[in-house]
Amino acid sequence: MEKISGGVTAPTGFKAGAIEAGIKYENRKDLAILVSEKPCVTAGTFTTNVVKAAPVVWDRDIVKGNGISQAVVVNSGIANACTGEKGKKYCEETAETLANALNIPKSSVLIASTGVIGMQLKIDRIKVGIEAIIPRLSHELAAGHEAAEAIMTTDTHPKEFAVSFTLEDKEIRIGGMCKGSGMIHPNMCTMLSFLTTDISISRELLQEALSDSVKESYNMISVDGDTSTNDTCLLLANGMAGNAKILEKNDAYYCFLEALKKVNIELAKMMAGDGEGAKALFTVRVIHADTLDNARVLARSVVSSSLTKAAIFGHDANWGRILCALGYSGADFDPNNMELYLGTESEKLLLFANGEPVDYSEKEATRLLSGEEVTVTADMKMGDAAATAWGCDLTYDYVRINADYRS
Amino acid sequence: MEKISGGVTAPTGFKAGAIEAGIKYENRKDLAILVSEKPCVTAGTFTTNVVKAAPVVWDRDIVKGNGISQAVVVNSGIANACTGEKGKKYCEETAETLANALNIPKSSVLIASTGVIGMQLKIDRIKVGIEAIIPRLSHELAAGHEAAEAIMTTDTHPKEFAVSFTLEDKEIRIGGMCKGSGMIHPNMCTMLSFLTTDISISRELLQEALSDSVKESYNMISVDGDTSTNDTCLLLANGMAGNAKILEKNDAYYCFLEALKKVNIELAKMMAGDGEGAKALFTVRVIHADTLDNARVLARSVVSSSLTKAAIFGHDANWGRILCALGYSGADFDPNNMELYLGTESEKLLLFANGEPVDYSEKEATRLLSGEEVTVTADMKMGDAAATAWGCDLTYDYVRINADYRS
Repeated sequence: MEKISGGVTAPTGFKAGAIEAGIKYENRKDLAILVSEKPCVTAGTFTTNVVKAAPVVWDRDIVKGNGISQAVVVNSGIANACTGEKGKKYCEETAETLANALNIPKSSVLIASTGVIGMQLKIDRIKVGIEAIIPRLSHELAAGHEAAEAIMTTDTHPKEFAVSFTLEDKEIRIGGMCKGSGMIHPNMCTMLSFLTTDISISRELLQEALSDSVKESYNMISVDGDTSTNDTCLLLANGMAGNAKILEKNDAYYCFLEALKKVNIELAKMMAGDGEGAKALFTVRVIHADTLDNARVLARSVVSSSLTKAAIFGHDANWGRILCALGYSGADFDPNNMELYLGTESEKLLLFANGEPVDYSEKEATRLLSGEEVTVTADMKMGDAAATAWGCDLTYDYVRINADYRS
Repeated sequence: MEKISGGVTAPTGFKAGAIEAGIKYENRKDLAILVSEKPCVTAGTFTTNVVKAAPVVWDRDIVKGNGISQAVVVNSGIANACTGEKGKKYCEETAETLANALNIPKSSVLIASTGVIGMQLKIDRIKVGIEAIIPRLSHELAAGHEAAEAIMTTDTHPKEFAVSFTLEDKEIRIGGMCKGSGMIHPNMCTMLSFLTTDISISRELLQEALSDSVKESYNMISVDGDTSTNDTCLLLANGMAGNAKILEKNDAYYCFLEALKKVNIELAKMMAGDGEGAKALFTVRVIHADTLDNARVLARSVVSSSLTKAAIFGHDANWGRILCALGYSGADFDPNNMELYLGTESEKLLLFANGEPVDYSEKEATRLLSGEEVTVTADMKMGDAAATAWGCDLTYDYVRINADYRS
């Protein structure tokens, strides 16, 4: 497996395009379309929030229905959430417009929206925008990049990642783009993520691979503990790579799963590191936990702790807050038999062991806390399970961005 | 029942005192003692954090043991949490010092600490401080006030409340003081609270009344989602009011319970409103929920939402974030059949109903969001259960305070 350039248009047979549709933002692209030359088996995971945006309900029906899609249309600026019957109708009209333009069934058009909750979409601008994008759809990597730009809200940069690997002499590619900066908290992806691949695989295995990889990637990041109404992760596989269709969990399946995890983890880390106002990517590793579930719960509790995140912003080795967050996570452990350190095994600074503070160098701690990436490791000394979670520091800019995001 | 002046020294037979012991802070009181003339039946609730500070373990042993206490010693500045065997030994030495000075058993001295996690106490200063407070112990309300000052950390003002009511011609009093500003999140009290009363009551009913009232008060507030290692709420009853001892759940018990709830709710609201950096008290009422548990879960989810709290700080009627927080709370409901409004029944501004935004006056919304108290009501239209939670806005000052609290 190797990293390759590009995002959603990296795999064979996918085109993208984007435009300034004037939905809410000014002077920037805010509408993107992704199209496959051939119909795709489709997998998806969606927000667990009881309040689901209209496009989430629309996509879920397709993924749980025949699971076939061929295009995705995404707008930023307005989330189409809490918009009642009108919001549903706008989904239908959006899908119809793109379906007619591409001459495909309405039921194979997926939709995603992100932005302010509770405003109605400017549906006319979306219709005009879709028509305007059609002639611009392109296989170029730059087209995928423009789409990644168009789906941003408070993100400071577009997020793309792609890999390539070989199965029976066939080159398989997976590409992805995502957006997410605020309202980000582990429970499904709390963001929008669109993944494309040219692999040939059964629908059931595609969904299983996606669900598996989401648990280790998007579900392990947190910016602010708020699980959005619009979280959506979609994976489209058009089979154009020409490999023998994967129908069971053979070596080919696990090669694909590994590559998919790589793409999703890299995209998830980009979102965590670009959390609203963030100055640092905060990585928490839990090792030697008793169960995988507990390892994940412990790691997520620490990256979600406001006090810990504020201390990271202040480059302050206030490790008591980390221990405190492990303690209220819900997972049981013995504080008298575990170790906490800054960094990883290769460069570690022990802070706490045997139930007591360790005499460490504050200068060294400050150095390890001052980079663009800060890593903390908790060794639970209970078993073999491990998990990693990603978050960011809590800064003045998070408050500034969210005190007046709507206006 | 009526509100009366003072705090922990308002009930008959309780003395308090405080001093600058120089434990960590400079130029302020940081050590307080509370003493009853007679031994007290004692109730307590403690943090659910797996990582428990040494004094929490000490107090729990007394409350779960014979349940008799006569004095409490509290220091601020250092939490005596994550301090291993030395931390336990310091608890024992602290209790011993006060027990010898008062000529009472060591096992009737309760201890509480609040401040930085992972530092060892300056035990010599605590011992000297205890000896210095003894001659200053006083029944005066001012002495209770000084104790309330001494237990503060980042609190901006001391927190006291007291009530009086009559049982069989006897005046019963309940007084309380608490501290708490950061590391505040519903799950037990997430703070220190000390309550005194001169009522005569059985130990079992005292504990039941405390546990009941905590669920509606301290467990319904949140500042930052971090459940502390040191949360402690203690209630001492010395029986000096002279009422017939309460041994069953009769009218007298319910009078006492009501009065105790009043004291705890008022103290809890003071903590929420004085959350680190807070500019406003944020009250969330959930009415007509299907169950009491769900009402509480829904209300707490909203006061804990960073995005909602940042919007309150910005006086922005971003009600979508409130609906979003209700949606990820874990409680089920129908977003198409509920109402959300600013204010209470007496002055309400409807924001969302029947699954759709309502056309409301932004000017009026901004006015309701700009006071020192902001109230939001969610009418779930499912049943008869109701709950109220209290929190605060998320401000630049929260980040500032917590980015360098330790130093």
